[in-house]
Amino acid sequence: MSAAVPIQGNRFCIVGGASLVGSATASELLDHGAAEVVLFDNFAFGSEAAIAHLKDHPRLRLVRGDVMRLSDLLRVTEGMAGVLQLAAYMTLSMDRDPWGGLDVNIRGVQNALEACRANQVRKVVFASSNAAYGYGPGVAGDLVESTPFHSQGAPPAAILYGATKIIGEQLCRDAFRKWGQDYVVLRYSTVYGERQHHRAANALYIIETLEKLRRGEAPEIFGDGSETKHFVYVGDLARANRLAFESAASDVAVNTSGPAPITTRDLVLLVTELAGGGPAPKSVGHAAGKVRLTSGGAFRIAHEAAQAAIGWQPEVDMREGLRRLIAWLDSGNDRR
Amino acid sequence: MSAAVPIQGNRFCIVGGASLVGSATASELLDHGAAEVVLFDNFAFGSEAAIAHLKDHPRLRLVRGDVMRLSDLLRVTEGMAGVLQLAAYMTLSMDRDPWGGLDVNIRGVQNALEACRANQVRKVVFASSNAAYGYGPGVAGDLVESTPFHSQGAPPAAILYGATKIIGEQLCRDAFRKWGQDYVVLRYSTVYGERQHHRAANALYIIETLEKLRRGEAPEIFGDGSETKHFVYVGDLARANRLAFESAASDVAVNTSGPAPITTRDLVLLVTELAGGGPAPKSVGHAAGKVRLTSGGAFRIAHEAAQAAIGWQPEVDMREGLRRLIAWLDSGNDRR
Repeated sequence: MSAAVPIQGNRFCIVGGASLVGSATASELLDHGAAEVVLFDNFAFGSEAAIAHLKDHPRLRLVRGDVMRLSDLLRVTEGMAGVLQLAAYMTLSMDRDPWGGLDVNIRGVQNALEACRANQVRKVVFASSNAAYGYGPGVAGDLVESTPFHSQGAPPAAILYGATKIIGEQLCRDAFRKWGQDYVVLRYSTVYGERQHHRAANALYIIETLEKLRRGEAPEIFGDGSETKHFVYVGDLARANRLAFESAASDVAVNTSGPAPITTRDLVLLVTELAGGGPAPKSVGHAAGKVRLTSGGAFRIAHEAAQAAIGWQPEVDMREGLRRLIAWLDSGNDRR
Repeated sequence: MSAAVPIQGNRFCIVGGASLVGSATASELLDHGAAEVVLFDNFAFGSEAAIAHLKDHPRLRLVRGDVMRLSDLLRVTEGMAGVLQLAAYMTLSMDRDPWGGLDVNIRGVQNALEACRANQVRKVVFASSNAAYGYGPGVAGDLVESTPFHSQGAPPAAILYGATKIIGEQLCRDAFRKWGQDYVVLRYSTVYGERQHHRAANALYIIETLEKLRRGEAPEIFGDGSETKHFVYVGDLARANRLAFESAASDVAVNTSGPAPITTRDLVLLVTELAGGGPAPKSVGHAAGKVRLTSGGAFRIAHEAAQAAIGWQPEVDMREGLRRLIAWLDSGNDRR
């Protein structure tokens, strides 16, 4: 039986769905004819604001529940053709609460997979992260799917987060081997776009720059600004999630990154330009006491394998993606 | 305050102590004047046989308990100067029961650290593993403490096991940063020696060869026999554990490996020689369906950093260590 799950006429559950990626993916699946999209969230990190634009959609259903309760997941995944597993602590939250983070990022995935097994869900898409490659010295050039996990010089929370993503991926592989669970792992780059939140360390380079500019203050560049970051626009990622369900791919893990990386200096300058100008940025050295993720140099996250596996490539570059984010903020929708 | 914890007159708890490494370390600590050594074990993997030689020792106490119960650990670590955290699922057990393995290897460490915090235990020694470097292509030459985690081509259980060791190490680092918990991480090579068990995939190369020879059968060499393995003798490891407590080192992770690596072919030939001869080995190709760990080529696990950090180097080479293991088996002590 093919691992392809058409969107049209099928039901999908997004675990951790009241979120940046969850809401965009829900729109994408509904626009492509999904019979129903269920957003499952405990609202610990998710928000009503993130899904306000969707909540009256006739084919959307919101279910409050917790990934730590298998019973909740067993109920919500009944009748689903596909499940997108997004629920996770990211690095900043992991630093504050490593017990909670390890629970949600590991037991949460175990529970989701177990519920999919029980309910014969055809395909799981698991949101992994480029954190599966770690951080620190040695990471330079292209990050490809076989790049090992570097952890030298990284704060504990960043390594814990990356390790939980490695474990989540392997739980999917184990489920495929042991009971034939079809799955696709997408290793997301740092996501940005409409409904941006403050929980992703790297996305703070964007959102904090905008906030500084709005207050008339000079935006900050950490270090010499030569470090690269490789973002992905939320709409591109929503499409990647859809294609991961629709494609015949299974038992595979691929990167989903934007068209090109950007240095933190160029990012601040681009945001300043798109925001209509403002004070020149100031260099502030590396932020002491903050969990900042250092990439250890220049790199690009290769996304060619995603094209081969699920027929996806990014379409929205940072200029266009940031323009949309800023337009959304300026429209007054930024009510968190 | 120095992170050095003298053995003489102090009390120590070995979590997961009814084991190969636990029993040898208990003897080492008692021989060096520990006021008390407590072996904490739930006997899921531990055995009465592993500690039979110790059970009447006046300064040894056996406590049955489970690392998944924080209350058990809170009680058993009261008054302890040092805690050695050994309790873990290894790769073979992780393959059979990944839920249990992730629970014990992560929550078990969290519980142990939390108990140490509550009881102001001065130092934790955490048994990590060279699995923290993963497996697969790209691992060649010396494995040093900054070598990244490779996982290409490895079975899920091996990656899960390695990732739990990465997480355990980071939980120690996090505890050091957040409440000043002194700790030393030792990344054990595959351990062998008296009271050898059947749970470590790589140690099976030794024990299965011996069992074949005893039955008059030809021992097996997997593949072309050119892969290296790097073992460590259990007595050397017991001494490393003691030195980790005694030294002033803290917040550090070092490898503990034997004097030199050995190819699987040379290992089988050496075991055959020490066992008094036997049929020539036969090549059987890679074992289908078994969780075998492939090293991806020739490598050596560097242990020089352990010398610098805790003043340890291995003393027992494979010829001597295997001689002792075989003598112990021949003495009829092998009652598991």
